[in-house]
Amino acid sequence: MHETAHAMWAADRASAMLGMEAIGVSPGRGRVSMLVRTDMVNGHDLCHGGVIASLADSAFALACNSHGPVTVAAGFSIEFLQPGRLGQTLYADAREVSLRGRSGIYDVTVRADDPEDGDVIAEFRGRSRALPDRSAPRG
Amino acid sequence: MHETAHAMWAADRASAMLGMEAIGVSPGRGRVSMLVRTDMVNGHDLCHGGVIASLADSAFALACNSHGPVTVAAGFSIEFLQPGRLGQTLYADAREVSLRGRSGIYDVTVRADDPEDGDVIAEFRGRSRALPDRSAPRG
Amino acid sequence: MHETAHAMWAADRASAMLGMEAIGVSPGRGRVSMLVRTDMVNGHDLCHGGVIASLADSAFALACNSHGPVTVAAGFSIEFLQPGRLGQTLYADAREVSLRGRSGIYDVTVRADDPEDGDVIAEFRGRSRALPDRSAPRG
Amino acid sequence: MHETAHAMWAADRASAMLGMEAIGVSPGRGRVSMLVRTDMVNGHDLCHGGVIASLADSAFALACNSHGPVTVAAGFSIEFLQPGRLGQTLYADAREVSLRGRSGIYDVTVRADDPEDGDVIAEFRGRSRALPDRSAPRG
Repeated sequence: MHETAHAMWAADRASAMLGMEAIGVSPGRGRVSMLVRTDMVNGHDLCHGGVIASLADSAFALACNSHGPVTVAAGFSIEFLQPGRLGQTLYADAREVSLRGRSGIYDVTVRADDPEDGDVIAEFRGRSRALPDRSAPRG
Repeated sequence: MHETAHAMWAADRASAMLGMEAIGVSPGRGRVSMLVRTDMVNGHDLCHGGVIASLADSAFALACNSHGPVTVAAGFSIEFLQPGRLGQTLYADAREVSLRGRSGIYDVTVRADDPEDGDVIAEFRGRSRALPDRSAPRG
Repeated sequence: MHETAHAMWAADRASAMLGMEAIGVSPGRGRVSMLVRTDMVNGHDLCHGGVIASLADSAFALACNSHGPVTVAAGFSIEFLQPGRLGQTLYADAREVSLRGRSGIYDVTVRADDPEDGDVIAEFRGRSRALPDRSAPRG
Repeated sequence: MHETAHAMWAADRASAMLGMEAIGVSPGRGRVSMLVRTDMVNGHDLCHGGVIASLADSAFALACNSHGPVTVAAGFSIEFLQPGRLGQTLYADAREVSLRGRSGIYDVTVRADDPEDGDVIAEFRGRSRALPDRSAPRG
């Protein structure tokens, strides 16, 4: 894992609190998994949409920090296609769509139970911005 | 609080896990607060973007369920304007922009420390869809 | 009208080709009108969504150039709420939601027939970026 | 070209007015080209962002109507990566990302001068909704 992405992940207590695991990072890509726990669901045992977005956002952060410069999210959009369910393992796969200067676009697909062939839970598109220097990143 | 929004909130373990409090709901509106805890931040003590999005998503859920029919998120977009910091209390204020048939649009502003005048942390726009019947909602 | 916004509008042949009129600009705001012509509609006499987006984008451009620095669109999102119809005059009203450094967010509401009370046709959210110097703007 | 997509295109006077040509449609896909004319640019000879969005929207419409049921745009988002320039031919390539029930997601990439390898001008993501019956589509 690239040093910036590695350091970012090691210090990311939110992803740890949500039980996420970084299962892959390479230039322009990142992959993260998360088990849908009892404390992440509603009364119908369906995962909170914000928690699904958090998973995608963490994969996006890995991917956009894979190149070296500290890079933060300027914003993102997400479409929910199917619910994530209690006990499922969700996989977020982020890949770079565009990187020009300090601005990047990354697409993230969230699948259930199988990182390659599982049902698609959500499609996420993030916009990143590399910081100009070593100032503190945005959360 | 309207019965649907109340029941939804009471069963929402994810919002509880993140320490959120519902501080207001009325027709087409919802307001939620959350303290940025040590387990929500990165190495620079800045709140994870997905956690900020979760806060906004919960306020959106209150607002779009304030009318009665069980309503779920179809998707949302969020712009991050400033970081949320460790120890700040964030306030998400959701209001209805449009509601036609079963489809709604809601804007949510997230502010720090003061629900009315605090610095704006994020702007969120959610798209909702009311369920046709009493089938289980999406997370 | 501010000089930058005025010069931009005067040179904008696309807005002219689509028959748009700038009916107001002030700091952080812009308003544009457009008649839905026969060459803008489909077989059901409904206006092309991209043409509605163009109207909103032009109002956004006025608003984000109202401060002086040459400013371009980084991107936008739009929700279509009702069709625009042949013969209607559409009004796009843009207002600044946020401006920090060189990055801005603007919301634009498109209404039919009455700029204040007409039915809402679309809701648009644009993200702007001021250019660092007098280099040529993006379209 | 599928009958619904064909009929839609034949009746679409806005795409014709903008000089667009449908250069391909197959299940879940659509491709459209457009020359950037003098009446589409600003004072720097750069194409209006709304016109680029219109091109992408037309390719999206072809793709989402390729299956048969009359389908309309619920909304879209677009990121502008590079300007489109006077005299360039722009190519919009739309492909289906997801189709569940009546709701679809389509991604469209706009390139300059070469439909496969040209510089990427914009990335667009559209959300579609099939109409329940033969009622008139939205523009």
